[in-house]
Amino acid sequence: MSISTSDEWADVEKALERAFTAANKLYAERGFGKPYGFGKRPALITIDLANAWTLPGNPYTCDQKAMNTKIIPGVQTLQKMARGKGFPIVHVTTAFDNTNPEDPNRDTGLTKTPVHCLKYRPENSLWKIDDRIAPIDGERLIIKKCASGFQGTDLANYLTSIDVDTVLVAGVTASCCVRATLYDAKAHGFRPVAIKECIGDRIPAAVQYNLFDIGAKIGDVRTVNDCQEYLNSL
Amino acid sequence: MSISTSDEWADVEKALERAFTAANKLYAERGFGKPYGFGKRPALITIDLANAWTLPGNPYTCDQKAMNTKIIPGVQTLQKMARGKGFPIVHVTTAFDNTNPEDPNRDTGLTKTPVHCLKYRPENSLWKIDDRIAPIDGERLIIKKCASGFQGTDLANYLTSIDVDTVLVAGVTASCCVRATLYDAKAHGFRPVAIKECIGDRIPAAVQYNLFDIGAKIGDVRTVNDCQEYLNSL
Amino acid sequence: MSISTSDEWADVEKALERAFTAANKLYAERGFGKPYGFGKRPALITIDLANAWTLPGNPYTCDQKAMNTKIIPGVQTLQKMARGKGFPIVHVTTAFDNTNPEDPNRDTGLTKTPVHCLKYRPENSLWKIDDRIAPIDGERLIIKKCASGFQGTDLANYLTSIDVDTVLVAGVTASCCVRATLYDAKAHGFRPVAIKECIGDRIPAAVQYNLFDIGAKIGDVRTVNDCQEYLNSL
Amino acid sequence: MSISTSDEWADVEKALERAFTAANKLYAERGFGKPYGFGKRPALITIDLANAWTLPGNPYTCDQKAMNTKIIPGVQTLQKMARGKGFPIVHVTTAFDNTNPEDPNRDTGLTKTPVHCLKYRPENSLWKIDDRIAPIDGERLIIKKCASGFQGTDLANYLTSIDVDTVLVAGVTASCCVRATLYDAKAHGFRPVAIKECIGDRIPAAVQYNLFDIGAKIGDVRTVNDCQEYLNSL
Repeated sequence: MSISTSDEWADVEKALERAFTAANKLYAERGFGKPYGFGKRPALITIDLANAWTLPGNPYTCDQKAMNTKIIPGVQTLQKMARGKGFPIVHVTTAFDNTNPEDPNRDTGLTKTPVHCLKYRPENSLWKIDDRIAPIDGERLIIKKCASGFQGTDLANYLTSIDVDTVLVAGVTASCCVRATLYDAKAHGFRPVAIKECIGDRIPAAVQYNLFDIGAKIGDVRTVNDCQEYLNSL
Repeated sequence: MSISTSDEWADVEKALERAFTAANKLYAERGFGKPYGFGKRPALITIDLANAWTLPGNPYTCDQKAMNTKIIPGVQTLQKMARGKGFPIVHVTTAFDNTNPEDPNRDTGLTKTPVHCLKYRPENSLWKIDDRIAPIDGERLIIKKCASGFQGTDLANYLTSIDVDTVLVAGVTASCCVRATLYDAKAHGFRPVAIKECIGDRIPAAVQYNLFDIGAKIGDVRTVNDCQEYLNSL
Repeated sequence: MSISTSDEWADVEKALERAFTAANKLYAERGFGKPYGFGKRPALITIDLANAWTLPGNPYTCDQKAMNTKIIPGVQTLQKMARGKGFPIVHVTTAFDNTNPEDPNRDTGLTKTPVHCLKYRPENSLWKIDDRIAPIDGERLIIKKCASGFQGTDLANYLTSIDVDTVLVAGVTASCCVRATLYDAKAHGFRPVAIKECIGDRIPAAVQYNLFDIGAKIGDVRTVNDCQEYLNSL
Repeated sequence: MSISTSDEWADVEKALERAFTAANKLYAERGFGKPYGFGKRPALITIDLANAWTLPGNPYTCDQKAMNTKIIPGVQTLQKMARGKGFPIVHVTTAFDNTNPEDPNRDTGLTKTPVHCLKYRPENSLWKIDDRIAPIDGERLIIKKCASGFQGTDLANYLTSIDVDTVLVAGVTASCCVRATLYDAKAHGFRPVAIKECIGDRIPAAVQYNLFDIGAKIGDVRTVNDCQEYLNSL
């Protein structure tokens, strides 16, 4: 079920690397890609690090090597630091009350993806956050129904009410929910930071080209180590 | 000032084409990429087809060949049809009341792009819609301050109030404002359609890989001809 | 704990009745208070008809006579009709993940009301919808954290996605959550209808003066019987 | 055209005063009405202090005595202080691109009030902010289309982006746009403050009963003098 070993992608990634080097030079000349810098009070937001995405065998399953060697460990490191410092952690996942495709009142809407597996029921583990990085008491679990963690949720209202100005975003996928969340974080007036090693997808190059677009126009792209230093400095 | 002639991009586009063919097969196996289909009442939305993007010589200038041979002519064709049929046309652009980088109360916020040229003043033509596709009396001009045409504007409220269910989106850029607008159109409950030939960027491959992600997960990607047939059928 | 028997209110209601008669005449002269009329596809929305409000003995408890003789029976009647016709029913309540007043990351924010009793835990019945009008399978339960059922929820997105244009609103309280929900229904492009007998409060006159303001400027105020006739006509 | 001299209202105001004294006691027993307190960085927001509301002779004209002796002078005082201290001032008004009642694509939507006089055209002075308190260079003018200054505008995004946590709200009317704005300020995570003497209406008691509801559940109600002391303290 994996599409991450396709030989096509090695070529793509090399070609994109060359092209983005040229593009970055030209973006810089035009005044794009300036960093925002970190702000005064961060929140750590994870997007769709729920079992349907983090574990093997589901339609939403993401690249497992990146998940297990980089994304989950990186998030664990940053969660531990954020908890130690008292910074808020928000866990965003996706679930639906009514996935019956015949019901005109279902809350999935029209959809391009196999949402039927994400029914919000206690016995369904797929929408629940991966045990390795699950919420502890007092942390927010936010359920969304579309790509962005901000759309149709109280995430922006919540972050404003607790005086957050910087959102550190990890999760999947680069090409959909993470990117949409970063757009909206900026739109709502926060400083969006994409945590480089902690963002995954199903298609390898999708991380690469989405992080390129994000860094040029949407959010700062920073390493786990950068984020650790920032949290330590507060 | 153009980056569209770089030889690097020809390689990239060929490599992406091969890779996306493989990816599409695997997305289909997993149940991604299903079309929404057109709905009952469309609106035609243009994103940032203002002089800063459509004309040469500005930091925001987009690929001029695509602009003049495909984007503007395609939008002209669809605007004419929509007007003839009485469907709403919305022109979205970007402008700011206060672009003074020293003023902590400016409305540009932090920004990764050269927004200082988009000051909302009558004498500044850069934020104004390109004359070739400009609003006529009764059409909405909506000014946004971030990527999405929906964020911080009344676009969703307006479309709901006039019973629109389908948004046909044209404009620039694929990698930023058009993509963000399509995410939000879906989030707000509309059917988002990316008009294939009428979406541009500064970097050629950016149209290609953004339309790939959009088609897989966010919106239908349809040709000008498809949209014409749809409008004709109503 | 009741404030509904105070003698002060009888005087108030009589005085308000005289005054609103005069005011309605002047509003009409100025062109205020025109009815929207019912639309094509309604949803029935209940606001905070959860045990903390509907049952006696809580800080949020509302006027019990109105609750038991008018609000609950009226909602039961309309729910039965809406279910029979396949129109969507949405149950909105209020609950919080973290009500610890010492935690700077709590999701209650600052608050003027005793939210500590509304912790979102299975063993806490106070945030749950009253059994007499509880959701059945397939109906939405939406949890909000502020006055309006639309703020910080996917209610507007959901209603747009299922092609609703009219919202019939019942619940409590007239002076806070119901009124805020009606404002937002209109803002999002829907036709807001306040179901006259099905809106309650803790203070009797609050229903009267809030329905007066609503009818003049915000939404249509219609009886249960009007709504029944409308549902029957569809 | 005034309805503020009606004898009915003197009775109403006295009756309400007695009733609210009793109600406040009972609200306090239940834990309602706790003050938020002022925050760290305020913005001064005026709602619909445009000529259609502030000057005589229009359908929207408000009580002129309150406007000229309390609202405008109070706003002038606070604007001067806010400007001196560098705090943001936002002027919110209402206008529409298309007020043609026959056009299904008009942006007025359905409406209960005489919006035809608020067409957004340079030659129409009615939607423009009253000269006595008009924006100066660098201040935001935000145009809304519904009651709340937050709905369909970038007001929340803007305030978050410039690190505001407290909104001081003045304007008209108590029974519609001011109240809706205060609801939304709270929903978006800000501390809403209603400036007592600077909020008006067309009906005298409407200020009284709306400020009562606001103080009990929505926002702090503070005098101009309180706000001056607060601004001075920063």
